[in-house]
Amino acid sequence: MRLFDFNRAPNPRRVRMFIAEKDLSIPLINVDLFSKEQLSPEYRAINPDCTVPLLETDDGVFIREGLAICSYLEDLHPEPCLLGNNATDRALVIQWNNIIESQGIDAVAEVLRNVSPGFRNHALPGPMQLPQLPDLVKRGQIRVMSFFDRIEEQLEGQRYLAGDAFSFADISLLATVDFADWVETRATATRPNLQRWYQEISARPSARA
Amino acid sequence: MRLFDFNRAPNPRRVRMFIAEKDLSIPLINVDLFSKEQLSPEYRAINPDCTVPLLETDDGVFIREGLAICSYLEDLHPEPCLLGNNATDRALVIQWNNIIESQGIDAVAEVLRNVSPGFRNHALPGPMQLPQLPDLVKRGQIRVMSFFDRIEEQLEGQRYLAGDAFSFADISLLATVDFADWVETRATATRPNLQRWYQEISARPSARA
Repeated sequence: MRLFDFNRAPNPRRVRMFIAEKDLSIPLINVDLFSKEQLSPEYRAINPDCTVPLLETDDGVFIREGLAICSYLEDLHPEPCLLGNNATDRALVIQWNNIIESQGIDAVAEVLRNVSPGFRNHALPGPMQLPQLPDLVKRGQIRVMSFFDRIEEQLEGQRYLAGDAFSFADISLLATVDFADWVETRATATRPNLQRWYQEISARPSARA
Repeated sequence: MRLFDFNRAPNPRRVRMFIAEKDLSIPLINVDLFSKEQLSPEYRAINPDCTVPLLETDDGVFIREGLAICSYLEDLHPEPCLLGNNATDRALVIQWNNIIESQGIDAVAEVLRNVSPGFRNHALPGPMQLPQLPDLVKRGQIRVMSFFDRIEEQLEGQRYLAGDAFSFADISLLATVDFADWVETRATATRPNLQRWYQEISARPSARA
């Protein structure tokens, strides 16, 4: 088993943190997104989406998408449980993870990829050549703020994001808060619930994975 | 248990089709997206994202996001299995479902929501007021075509999208193909694998749910 990874990107970080919480040891293969190695013919052959993370299983199956990879690892190594330990909690972890991906990470990426020179003609992940659109910088900023405002409401009186236990939803949110600092969001500064939550989650040893 | 639904929208259709495959009977509550009922204070109180589908469980828990709702229903009613029956297949169903959501459904919606007068100032789902951006119509069309091209490659020699069995990934893709016709994509016309797959999946009784 091995994980195709890039140290600076938020999505592979979520999987590395999940692996660290499980105390697993999985070799990492660096795919240098800064030099666009993910667009090479060799990498496209194993992942047509040109994304990281990508897990290669011992059976030679390639699995894309953070939640899919973590589902696979949780099935093989159920403890500690990070994807919910009953039907309701499993659903809520998936729910929050998907909300974080589509409304949080995507919104931060919308700002970053439409403003940073490094993403010129690659304004979305993947093999498509797409121009940057200045209007999306402003839209992305609005989306990021709206996302964190709704997270702030959700964390009122809750120690963790999804149910009573630490889960992959917290991992995904931590990666999003740190990713948002790339576009100078300072999400925790004006949101006390998020700040309290961030102080606890970011202090976990796995947060350095 | 009850499902908040809107008959014309692709995301609740995926859950209705899943329910039909399981032969379950769950009352449907219509949320009229055409008259923006999802933005009412009553609905926002139970779903701050203002989206359908939304499942209310017998315990009074509200679950958003299609995959999360289906995970809950699969846990309660495991047969027929629609989310994969081993670690690898479970991961691949999640992988394909997430790819379909973020690259397929979102791309079709990007075209539709930026061109249709009905979405003026609501160019993204949810409570935010966001203007339509004409540049996103063209970008969305490119994304839709790229998505179906990659699906066409994946279906080469495969009866179903994720592994050897019919799954929720096929349900999500069927809803996307039909949703794409709203923006006149005719995805199956030039893609023989997709056409063969579509003829089989759309003939299932659940496709009319």
